[in-house]
Amino acid sequence: MEQQIAPLAHLAEQFGRLPGIGRKSAQRLAYAIVTMPESEAKAFADAILSAQRTVRRCSLCCDWTDQEICAVCRSAKRDASLLCVVEDPRDVAAIERTHEYHGLFHVLHGVISPLNGIGPEDLTVKELLARFEDAAVREVIMATNPTVEGEATAIYLSRLIKPLGVRVSRLAYGVPVGADLEYADEVTLARALEGRRDI
Amino acid sequence: MEQQIAPLAHLAEQFGRLPGIGRKSAQRLAYAIVTMPESEAKAFADAILSAQRTVRRCSLCCDWTDQEICAVCRSAKRDASLLCVVEDPRDVAAIERTHEYHGLFHVLHGVISPLNGIGPEDLTVKELLARFEDAAVREVIMATNPTVEGEATAIYLSRLIKPLGVRVSRLAYGVPVGADLEYADEVTLARALEGRRDI
Repeated sequence: MEQQIAPLAHLAEQFGRLPGIGRKSAQRLAYAIVTMPESEAKAFADAILSAQRTVRRCSLCCDWTDQEICAVCRSAKRDASLLCVVEDPRDVAAIERTHEYHGLFHVLHGVISPLNGIGPEDLTVKELLARFEDAAVREVIMATNPTVEGEATAIYLSRLIKPLGVRVSRLAYGVPVGADLEYADEVTLARALEGRRDI
Repeated sequence: MEQQIAPLAHLAEQFGRLPGIGRKSAQRLAYAIVTMPESEAKAFADAILSAQRTVRRCSLCCDWTDQEICAVCRSAKRDASLLCVVEDPRDVAAIERTHEYHGLFHVLHGVISPLNGIGPEDLTVKELLARFEDAAVREVIMATNPTVEGEATAIYLSRLIKPLGVRVSRLAYGVPVGADLEYADEVTLARALEGRRDI
């Protein structure tokens, strides 16, 4: 009978539309909202509206920002000769957490995937190419995911970018730090051998 | 730099307060909101506010409802002589999904847990005892979780209810259907042996 409580079922349905939230999780989250004080529920609803309204793509790198140009693109401390191309804004966050990269980013917002009907025109490729017009960029690091589609996208873009006289590199493949060789898949292990370095 | 987009970080923080949502999931969900059309984000925010405002405890069984009395308690088709006591509204939903139970429910909204400072006065025990006043109930099924606390709560309540001349039963313990005996824990297996039935 549970399912007949319309506002609760409706809220669970809304949660269920979010990525990675199944039916049970959606119901659990809806219950959590119901037990919240009104002020907290209101703060949550406001946060949703505010984020949806104010967050947009940076007009340079296409990462999310609440400004016209994002903080990374505006920063004078970043090396504008380096451009790291990623699929998703979350990848920017992941690379930023390494504290090892000081160049700029470009977010594709997806990956070329003919099977899903996603071509270069659905990504921010035009915006990426526009960034080479002032010729400050010397190297582009392709940091798309190490998947078939990520690989294909990296190759596609490198063919567009190399003729502009810009160096194009790709993230190193290899065994993840802390992993157990026994459980590494053969392709990764083969790539790790191939890419071995002197110590 | 990602983390500096205030509305996005704030929304992720809100998601992160929900049960079972870790830091990474919260961020993923916040990103999903940002990519939604405004109408969808608005529908989501409205669903939160509406559920929080309209859903309350049924004045009889304490399950969630958007009415004064919930659909189960109002139904003339339910057997009012049977009362199933559960910890959580989600347990009501789980039992309803079996389509095997036609009695009424009582939701405790928790379980006695001295370590967490939760006593009977924090649960809906008073409301439960009030339900025996009109003497329609013949049997109470204790369907609290098969945990130490669920067990202790069931025993505590049965000591209050039995003197009223009401039969008190407990869900059967045993091996879950479809499980592998090899992986069943000893306590469950011992209980399954103890509770064996003739075939």
